[in-house]
Amino acid sequence: MTRASVRIGLIGTGRIGQVHAAAIAANPHAELTGVADVFVDGARATAARFGGIATDNAEELIASGQLDAVLIASPTPTHVDLISASVEAGLPVLCEKPIDLDINRVDALLPKVRAASVPVALGFNRRFDPAFAAVRARVAAGEIGSLEQLSIISRDPAAPPADYVGVSGGIFRDMTIHDFDMARFFLPDIVEVSATGSQLFDDGARTHGDFDTAVTTLRSSCGAIVSITNSRHSAVGYDQRLEAFGATGMLQVANAPTSLVSLSTAAAVEAKPPYQDFFLERYAEAYAAELDAFIALVRGEKSDSPTYEDGRAALLLADAAQRSATGGGTVAVDLGFSAVAGAA
Amino acid sequence: MTRASVRIGLIGTGRIGQVHAAAIAANPHAELTGVADVFVDGARATAARFGGIATDNAEELIASGQLDAVLIASPTPTHVDLISASVEAGLPVLCEKPIDLDINRVDALLPKVRAASVPVALGFNRRFDPAFAAVRARVAAGEIGSLEQLSIISRDPAAPPADYVGVSGGIFRDMTIHDFDMARFFLPDIVEVSATGSQLFDDGARTHGDFDTAVTTLRSSCGAIVSITNSRHSAVGYDQRLEAFGATGMLQVANAPTSLVSLSTAAAVEAKPPYQDFFLERYAEAYAAELDAFIALVRGEKSDSPTYEDGRAALLLADAAQRSATGGGTVAVDLGFSAVAGAA
Amino acid sequence: MTRASVRIGLIGTGRIGQVHAAAIAANPHAELTGVADVFVDGARATAARFGGIATDNAEELIASGQLDAVLIASPTPTHVDLISASVEAGLPVLCEKPIDLDINRVDALLPKVRAASVPVALGFNRRFDPAFAAVRARVAAGEIGSLEQLSIISRDPAAPPADYVGVSGGIFRDMTIHDFDMARFFLPDIVEVSATGSQLFDDGARTHGDFDTAVTTLRSSCGAIVSITNSRHSAVGYDQRLEAFGATGMLQVANAPTSLVSLSTAAAVEAKPPYQDFFLERYAEAYAAELDAFIALVRGEKSDSPTYEDGRAALLLADAAQRSATGGGTVAVDLGFSAVAGAA
Amino acid sequence: MTRASVRIGLIGTGRIGQVHAAAIAANPHAELTGVADVFVDGARATAARFGGIATDNAEELIASGQLDAVLIASPTPTHVDLISASVEAGLPVLCEKPIDLDINRVDALLPKVRAASVPVALGFNRRFDPAFAAVRARVAAGEIGSLEQLSIISRDPAAPPADYVGVSGGIFRDMTIHDFDMARFFLPDIVEVSATGSQLFDDGARTHGDFDTAVTTLRSSCGAIVSITNSRHSAVGYDQRLEAFGATGMLQVANAPTSLVSLSTAAAVEAKPPYQDFFLERYAEAYAAELDAFIALVRGEKSDSPTYEDGRAALLLADAAQRSATGGGTVAVDLGFSAVAGAA
Repeated sequence: MTRASVRIGLIGTGRIGQVHAAAIAANPHAELTGVADVFVDGARATAARFGGIATDNAEELIASGQLDAVLIASPTPTHVDLISASVEAGLPVLCEKPIDLDINRVDALLPKVRAASVPVALGFNRRFDPAFAAVRARVAAGEIGSLEQLSIISRDPAAPPADYVGVSGGIFRDMTIHDFDMARFFLPDIVEVSATGSQLFDDGARTHGDFDTAVTTLRSSCGAIVSITNSRHSAVGYDQRLEAFGATGMLQVANAPTSLVSLSTAAAVEAKPPYQDFFLERYAEAYAAELDAFIALVRGEKSDSPTYEDGRAALLLADAAQRSATGGGTVAVDLGFSAVAGAA
Repeated sequence: MTRASVRIGLIGTGRIGQVHAAAIAANPHAELTGVADVFVDGARATAARFGGIATDNAEELIASGQLDAVLIASPTPTHVDLISASVEAGLPVLCEKPIDLDINRVDALLPKVRAASVPVALGFNRRFDPAFAAVRARVAAGEIGSLEQLSIISRDPAAPPADYVGVSGGIFRDMTIHDFDMARFFLPDIVEVSATGSQLFDDGARTHGDFDTAVTTLRSSCGAIVSITNSRHSAVGYDQRLEAFGATGMLQVANAPTSLVSLSTAAAVEAKPPYQDFFLERYAEAYAAELDAFIALVRGEKSDSPTYEDGRAALLLADAAQRSATGGGTVAVDLGFSAVAGAA
Repeated sequence: MTRASVRIGLIGTGRIGQVHAAAIAANPHAELTGVADVFVDGARATAARFGGIATDNAEELIASGQLDAVLIASPTPTHVDLISASVEAGLPVLCEKPIDLDINRVDALLPKVRAASVPVALGFNRRFDPAFAAVRARVAAGEIGSLEQLSIISRDPAAPPADYVGVSGGIFRDMTIHDFDMARFFLPDIVEVSATGSQLFDDGARTHGDFDTAVTTLRSSCGAIVSITNSRHSAVGYDQRLEAFGATGMLQVANAPTSLVSLSTAAAVEAKPPYQDFFLERYAEAYAAELDAFIALVRGEKSDSPTYEDGRAALLLADAAQRSATGGGTVAVDLGFSAVAGAA
Repeated sequence: MTRASVRIGLIGTGRIGQVHAAAIAANPHAELTGVADVFVDGARATAARFGGIATDNAEELIASGQLDAVLIASPTPTHVDLISASVEAGLPVLCEKPIDLDINRVDALLPKVRAASVPVALGFNRRFDPAFAAVRARVAAGEIGSLEQLSIISRDPAAPPADYVGVSGGIFRDMTIHDFDMARFFLPDIVEVSATGSQLFDDGARTHGDFDTAVTTLRSSCGAIVSITNSRHSAVGYDQRLEAFGATGMLQVANAPTSLVSLSTAAAVEAKPPYQDFFLERYAEAYAAELDAFIALVRGEKSDSPTYEDGRAALLLADAAQRSATGGGTVAVDLGFSAVAGAA
C-alpha cells in the first residue's frame, strides 16, 4: 500500500486503449503517466480523462525517463518496434495480442526479448477471467482427474467492419488467437492443429477471402484434445463458454447472465434476457486482474502474466490453423518448449 | 412373481377411475376383477378395455367373494359407505381423497376402521412421486439437518367446471388437501393453521362462494413452518414445486420439464416449452407406485400407504383452513396423534 | 455533469454507514462533506477515507450550512430526532430503515414531514435492485397479466449477535420490514396481515423472546396475496428470491450466482458454488442506484425514492405481523392511503 | 386400430435385441411372431417373455411365410446376408447399425437393396428421440434461421469390454456412427471429414489400436460445420447433448435429468443427481418411436425411417474419420447424393 504507484505509459487510445486507461486510473497501485497516439487528439482526450501527459510520439514517451512500464495498445504492425524500444529503455511491457501477424518478425525479436532484463507480458485477458481461472485451478487441484477434452465456444456478437477484416490477419490470427491461448492455459504443449473454416454470412470475410465460421481441433502432447468453435456473429449475444472434461468429472463455464430474472408464460418457461453485448462487459474483471498481474510483474513479485513466448505460441497455432483450413490437412506444430525454460 | 395377483374391484370409472384401471392392468401383481359404476356403460367400457366383470352395483361387487381388495374412485359422498361395506366384507381398501367433506361422517366411521382386521389406505398419490419421496428420504437421512421450513407451490393449469366447484367442498378440501397431506408427509403433527383466500378470476368460485387463490401456513408441533401456495389456474402449466429448508441446506423439487430442448434468440435465451398439462402426466409414476404400495399392504408386507387417519388429518386441516380464511384467524388443531399408535 | 455535486452529511459510520460513504465517494454527482458519529474515531476514519470533515456532533453538522442533504445511518432510536432536525434545517433526508421501532413516534413526526418543504426518503435499497426493479416494471408493462400472488423468500446467512437481537425490535421490524416494503413496491395497499413465527435455532432469539423463523401472509385491497418466508440463517448463503405470479405468466428472480462455473461428477451434476455472503455483495448495485435516486430527489428531479410514508407503512405491517404471530390471528391494517396523495 | 398387427421376426437376442423385443411386445400394432438366435436358449427365453416361436435358424424364420417384416439385431457380420435374404423373401427390414464394417460389402449389396420391392430401414434410433427430432423440426421451421454450426457431444458412461473393442471396427464405426447419422439428420450432404483421436484411458483401446477419445469435424456442402466430441467414458453418466447454432438463434438439447430434485448446501448449490446410466434409459422413447416408423414403412404409410443409403453414408463418414485420424489429414467424401433420388 505504501509502495509507489507504477508509472505506466499507454500507447494507443482506440477501444482497447480506453479499456486499459480506465483500468490504470482505477487501480490504486498504478498511475497513467503518459499517453501516446499518432492521432494526438485521442491521446489528449484520454490523458484529460484518466491522467498523464499526451504526445503523438511513442518513442519519446518511452525514452522520457518518467515511466516504470509501457502498455502497448496501438495497431498490431507497431507492436514489434515498440516492444523493442521499451526493452531497450529497460521498461517492462504489457503488449496487446497479437504480437504481430508475421511469425518471422516475432521470431526476429525473440532473442532480444529473451536477453532483456525486463519482462514482456502479453494481453491475453481471458486467463484472468474469474471463471476460466477457477476452472484451471480446480483442474490443477484434481477435481476432475486427468484432463482429457477441452471444449471452447467463442462467438462474437457481430462481425467487425469489412475494412478491419482486411487487415486482421484472418479469423485465426485475430479472433481464435484468444482461444489458442486459452487452450494453452490448460494444455501448454500443443503438437497438432486441424481447422475447418467457412464463409457463410459476412460480406467482409467474403471480400477479403477470410472465414466467418470455424472449428479448430488441437492435440496436446499428452493426448488431450481441444475443440474450438468460433463464429463472427451470435444473435444471442457474446457467447463464451468452456468445458473441461476429465477422467472423474467435468467443469463447465456458462455464459454470464445479464439479469437474475426469468419469464414463464404459456408460450415458453424460464426465458432469460440475452447474454452480454461484448467483451468489455464480459471481461471487465479480467482486464482489472490482468493489470494487477502486470503490476506484480513490474515489481518483481510473483505473477501469472502470459509471456512473449505465449504470444508467439498462439501465433504459431493460428498460422497452423490457417494452413490447415486452406488445404493443409492436419498440421504438426512444435512450440519449442523443450528450449524455453519454464514456458509450460 | 409366482404369487397370485391381487384381485381388485374398482368402483367408479370417471377420470381418476380410468387412471387406476390402467394402473391395475399394467401391474404384474394385480388383476382388475370387477368394475362398478352406477353409470353401467362406464363400467362396461372400462372392463372391456382393462378386464373384469362390469356392474352398476358396487355393494354386490364387494360382496361377490371374487375380490382381494377394493379401490374406491367413485364420487366423494359414496366413500364412507363403500369403505364401511368393504371392511365388513374383510377387504382392504384404497380410497381416493377426500374420505368425505364432512368430518363428522369421517369420525363416525373411525372406530370401525380402527377395529377392522383389514387396512384402509388413502389415495394421496403425491407421496409416491419419485421426487417428493426422494426429498423426504433425504431429509430423513439428514442431508439438510433439522427441517425448519417447507414451502409447497401447487397450482392447477385451469379451474374446474363451475358445477364441480359447487360440490367440491371448496378449494381447501378439494385441492389443498393434497398439500396438507404432503405437509404431513414431512411433518405429521400439525398444530396450527392460518389461511388467506381470494376470489380473483374464476366464475365458478365466484358463483359458489369459493376461493380460487389461497395461501396457507401450518405450524408443526416441533415449530417447523409450512407454507402452501395455491391457485386454480396457471398459464405456464401444472405448477408443482416443493422446497425443504433445513439447518444445513435445502432440497428443491423443480417442475418437470416436458422437453430437453431450449431456445435462445436475440429476444430471450434458454427458453423451454411450458410445463406439463396436468396431474395424469406429472404423477403417472406416482399412481403406479401407489398401487404397488397398496398391493404390498394387501399382502401384509411392509407398505408406505397413507392411512384412513391420514385422510382424516388432512380433512381436519382443510376444515381449519376454511375456518381461518373465512374470518377465523389462526386456528389451533389437534390431530390426535397421541391417541393413534403409529400414526406419525 | 456540469451541475454542482450534492454535498451530503453522513450520520453514523457503522457497517451500513460505510456502504453509504463508499457510494457517495464513488458517485460523480455527490460529495461527502461531513461525517458525524458519537464515536468520533469512526467519523474520522470514514472522513479520512471517503472525504469531508469529521465530528461527533450530528446536530452541528446538520446546522453547519455546508450541506445540501443528510444521510442518516445511525442507530434506529436516533432517526426521528435527526430527521426532525434535518427538515428544520431545510435539508432533504435519506434515512435508513426502520424510521423507529415505535409507531407512535413515527406518527408524531408525520405532520412535520408532510408539512416540510424538503423530501424525506427511506433507505429501502431493494427497490433499486436491478432484478426486482425489472420484475416490477415488467409486471406494470403487463407481461404476466394481473398480479395474483407474490412470493418473497428472504433468508439471512446467519443470525445477528444476541445483543443486537435484543434491541432490533424483533424479526418483523428488523428483517421482514424489507420484505413488507418489497410487497408494497408491487402492491401498495395491504389490508390484512397474518404471521407465524418460531424459535428454532438462534440463542439470541431465545434469550430475547424473538423468532428466528417466520412466514407472513399479506392481502392487498385488490385481493392479491403475498407470501413472505424468512429465516435468520441460511447455510447456502444469502437467499433472496421473488416470484410474481400473474394471470398469464410468472416472473422469477433467482439467487445471484457467485461464479459461472459448475462441477459435475459421479456424485452430483451441475453443482455451483454457494450464493453470495450477504447484502453488501448482493445489493451493491442497489445502494448505488438508491443514492442516484436520492440525488435526483434533492435536485427536484423525477425520483423513485421511497418516502417517509412508505417507511411508516412498512412499520405498521411489521407491528401487525408481530401482533398476529403472538396470538393476534389475522390482523386488519389501514395504511391510510386514501388520505395520502400520490402514495401509490 | 382395426388393421392386423405387423408380424415381426426378430433376429438376435442380445442387449439390443431385448430392447426391440420389448418394444414389439408393447406396441399395439406389432406382434413378435418369431425369434432367432444361434444361441437358441436366448431365442427361447425371449420368445417365452415377449411371444413368438424360437429357433436357432434365422434363414428358416425368414422363409417361414409367417412374417410381415424382419428386425435384425444380430452381430454386425451377419447383417448383409440377413438383409439380402429378407428382401429376397419380400420382407421389409429394420437392421441395426452399422450395416457392416466393410464398405465393399455394403456397396455390393446396394444394387439389390435399390432394386428390391421392399424397404430396408436402418436402426439409427436417435433420430426418433423427441428432443433431437424437435430440434430438427424447429430448425426446419426457421426458428434459428440458416443452420451454421452443429455441435454434438456424445460420451458413453464406460468403455465396452476389451473383446468387444477388438471386433467393433473402431470408435468411429462403432460409436461415432450414431453421431455421423445425427449430423446427416440435419445436414445430409457432408463433403469433408477431419478427425483427431487419442488413446487416453481404456486398456481395450490400447490393446486393439483403437481410440477412446475423439473429436471429428464435418463440413456440409452448404458450408455448415459439424463438431462431434466423443469419449468412451463419462464419470457423470451418459452424456448426450446437441447444439444447433443458426443465423438468428440456437437450439440446445440438455442431458436428461434423472430427478427433479436438487440439493443446496454450504459446499455447493443446485446439485442434481448424475445423468442417466445409458442408452436404454435415455432412448427408451426413441426405440418405441423407431418401431412405429418402421411399422408405418411396412404398411406403405408415410415414414421417417432412415434408409440403407443412410446406413451406407454413415459408414463412409466413419471410414473417412478413421483415415483422417490415422494420418490422412482432411478427407473429402462423396456420399453420392446426386445419384440417389430422395436421399436428402
